Amino acid sequence: MPEFLELLPPAAALEKLLAHLPLPDLPSETIDTASALGRVLKNRVLAQEPLPAFTRSTVDGYALRAADTYGASESLPAYLPLVGEVPMGAAPQFVLQPGTAASIHTGGMLPPGADAVLMLEYTQESRPGELEVLRAVGAGENILKVGEDVAIGQEVLPAGVRLRPAEIGGLMALGITEVEVVRRPRVGIISSGDEVVQPDEAVCPGQVRDINSYSLSALVTQAGAEPVRYGIVADQAAALDAALRTALAECDLVLVTAGSSASARDLTADVVNRMGQPGVLVHGVNVKPGKPTILAVCDGKAVIGLPGNPVSALVIARIFLIPVIEQLSGLMVGHSRLFTQARLTVNLASQAGREDYIPVKLISTPEGLAAAPIFYKSNLIFMLARADGLVRIPADATGLGAGMIVDVENL
Amino acid sequence: MPEFLELLPPAAALEKLLAHLPLPDLPSETIDTASALGRVLKNRVLAQEPLPAFTRSTVDGYALRAADTYGASESLPAYLPLVGEVPMGAAPQFVLQPGTAASIHTGGMLPPGADAVLMLEYTQESRPGELEVLRAVGAGENILKVGEDVAIGQEVLPAGVRLRPAEIGGLMALGITEVEVVRRPRVGIISSGDEVVQPDEAVCPGQVRDINSYSLSALVTQAGAEPVRYGIVADQAAALDAALRTALAECDLVLVTAGSSASARDLTADVVNRMGQPGVLVHGVNVKPGKPTILAVCDGKAVIGLPGNPVSALVIARIFLIPVIEQLSGLMVGHSRLFTQARLTVNLASQAGREDYIPVKLISTPEGLAAAPIFYKSNLIFMLARADGLVRIPADATGLGAGMIVDVENL
Repeated sequence: MPEFLELLPPAAALEKLLAHLPLPDLPSETIDTASALGRVLKNRVLAQEPLPAFTRSTVDGYALRAADTYGASESLPAYLPLVGEVPMGAAPQFVLQPGTAASIHTGGMLPPGADAVLMLEYTQESRPGELEVLRAVGAGENILKVGEDVAIGQEVLPAGVRLRPAEIGGLMALGITEVEVVRRPRVGIISSGDEVVQPDEAVCPGQVRDINSYSLSALVTQAGAEPVRYGIVADQAAALDAALRTALAECDLVLVTAGSSASARDLTADVVNRMGQPGVLVHGVNVKPGKPTILAVCDGKAVIGLPGNPVSALVIARIFLIPVIEQLSGLMVGHSRLFTQARLTVNLASQAGREDYIPVKLISTPEGLAAAPIFYKSNLIFMLARADGLVRIPADATGLGAGMIVDVENL
Repeated sequence: MPEFLELLPPAAALEKLLAHLPLPDLPSETIDTASALGRVLKNRVLAQEPLPAFTRSTVDGYALRAADTYGASESLPAYLPLVGEVPMGAAPQFVLQPGTAASIHTGGMLPPGADAVLMLEYTQESRPGELEVLRAVGAGENILKVGEDVAIGQEVLPAGVRLRPAEIGGLMALGITEVEVVRRPRVGIISSGDEVVQPDEAVCPGQVRDINSYSLSALVTQAGAEPVRYGIVADQAAALDAALRTALAECDLVLVTAGSSASARDLTADVVNRMGQPGVLVHGVNVKPGKPTILAVCDGKAVIGLPGNPVSALVIARIFLIPVIEQLSGLMVGHSRLFTQARLTVNLASQAGREDYIPVKLISTPEGLAAAPIFYKSNLIFMLARADGLVRIPADATGLGAGMIVDVENL
């Protein structure tokens, strides 16, 4: 099996693939900020106005001059005439004179003349129109000055962040209701194999339905990219060649799931190699499941040849596809692969030198989360459907012991 | 401040809210399985056919009768005439006679007469048409029998699972190209406050833009529900009453962000109480940020009154909104709140008896992930935008020490 003579570890294989890809160069598009959840910001955002835009109270209480409260205490209160109330949502129509106070709410604008807010809790209105001050307050206390949160010109969001609810809120706070985002990468998906038929077809003996086109489409969508399905292609060089050329012309990267047999996988590698330079970079990765993975760059676009087995295809796509999508989008490293820690319930054996991924179910126990491996005779897709995550057994381990705390990659 | 006399801890407040909600009762809809990512399965799925549907080889090699290999070894090979090749995707057109072998690929259908597959690695084709068998194989080895993965009638997916790529693949494997899912819960969002204006409006002194309608919409979308925005409502009972009635009639649950002042929050609670029985269940939660939270059930629908501050509103919505959405959808507990473990970089103080949520940045270090708290003078939305997650300080702690391993809820 010459294809597997030199098996790279997954991390080295990924590094090789990413190194041969051009820098992020996807075009951008301008969309409504309100619809931008999950999109990647093309450029950094600078504040065009300060936040807050006016000096505001951070508490409910009374706007006053701090100096007028000095020495006040519960045993020796100060008394200030109340001259009004600051309305919410409007500038106060008065200047606060020394020796007076005005009622103000959280978020209200400080009237000119005031330099602090005394919290409601430290006051009494013993007589109508008169404030009893039970504690002194310092100048600047309980107020937020113009630009104290965000100054004009300050970078509030760097380029390459994925927009979450907080980022969308932040853009709205600055009145940025349209935003330039990176176009979603288009990912072509080709399912190959003489035995594969459409899911809505009746299967004859020897045939199986196409799972990979749909599970991989869902993964691509989940990763923030746009799947484009090119259907099922027979294990013939001409058919695969034509499908790959179309997909590469229309998409930013292409996934091909190879037929199950070794000869079908060799055929895939040969055809991928014709698609452009430098061609196949990696043929065979030291990982289980997923050994027959093919990684290629053809004239600047990634082609990932995945094993035909649906579990292997999904596990391998998570390892290689998601980082490629992120690099294409110019995404700053961060949020994509989420791990949970859990205690392994049983011993897991593994072959030294190979990285293994084992589906596990997470179980709540009084001692914290437990990770229970799921065993099936075959590498069935429903095994993954029962799993909450994947435990990685590193290449330098010959297994993991029951009771060990392991990282579980959330599925 | 009578509203805060009795502050419930967040977990108890949530339990009270969920206990007053009706059992999952959202209608279902039938959609294409290919578009069902993230949707919740209405009913369990039983296999209408076995998997595999035919006895198949799990390796590349030779179909034969195990008995014909007994005693074979590298030093004493057995020799079998090769009678053909099993095509991929079709039933073999021959019966395998005793004392013969046929070439077969991974996923190929076992010919009648064969009971095992010998891996390619343990064979040689020394003379054309003759197989040299270098190792014995047991009956049933390297084959998967009909229904061995999934038997007819077996439950492959329970009701209430959220469909991920693996579940979508599993449904396709069984030819289920349409699926009945729970309708997405509709979540009404009302922003109240005299000081709040639309994000695309120019702000006058004293005014702030509406952040919450948009950050909460994004959170609702992220949680698999459908946001319906009812805009900005002034802090007047009549206006809030009308908006809430409309939202409750059209949605499955409603979020109201209250104005910033204490009086605006009291107004919200009064109006919510008019909307139906039992009305406000919780007014004030022992959590920071988010103390002035209101939880209500009005004639079977949840109303969540959130603080006006955008950070508090998002943190509290994560705690209360997401579990309500999950319960409404009949979602089995599982995947929603994801945690990462990290080492705290500094001491964090906290008030005993209160649960605190502190935004943190996750930093890769040679010793693993570190969680660095983000400090701002005010509770600004951009603080959350800089954060990777939230560290929870439990109510029974007076703080967390630098170097401690903490759970970080991913944002």
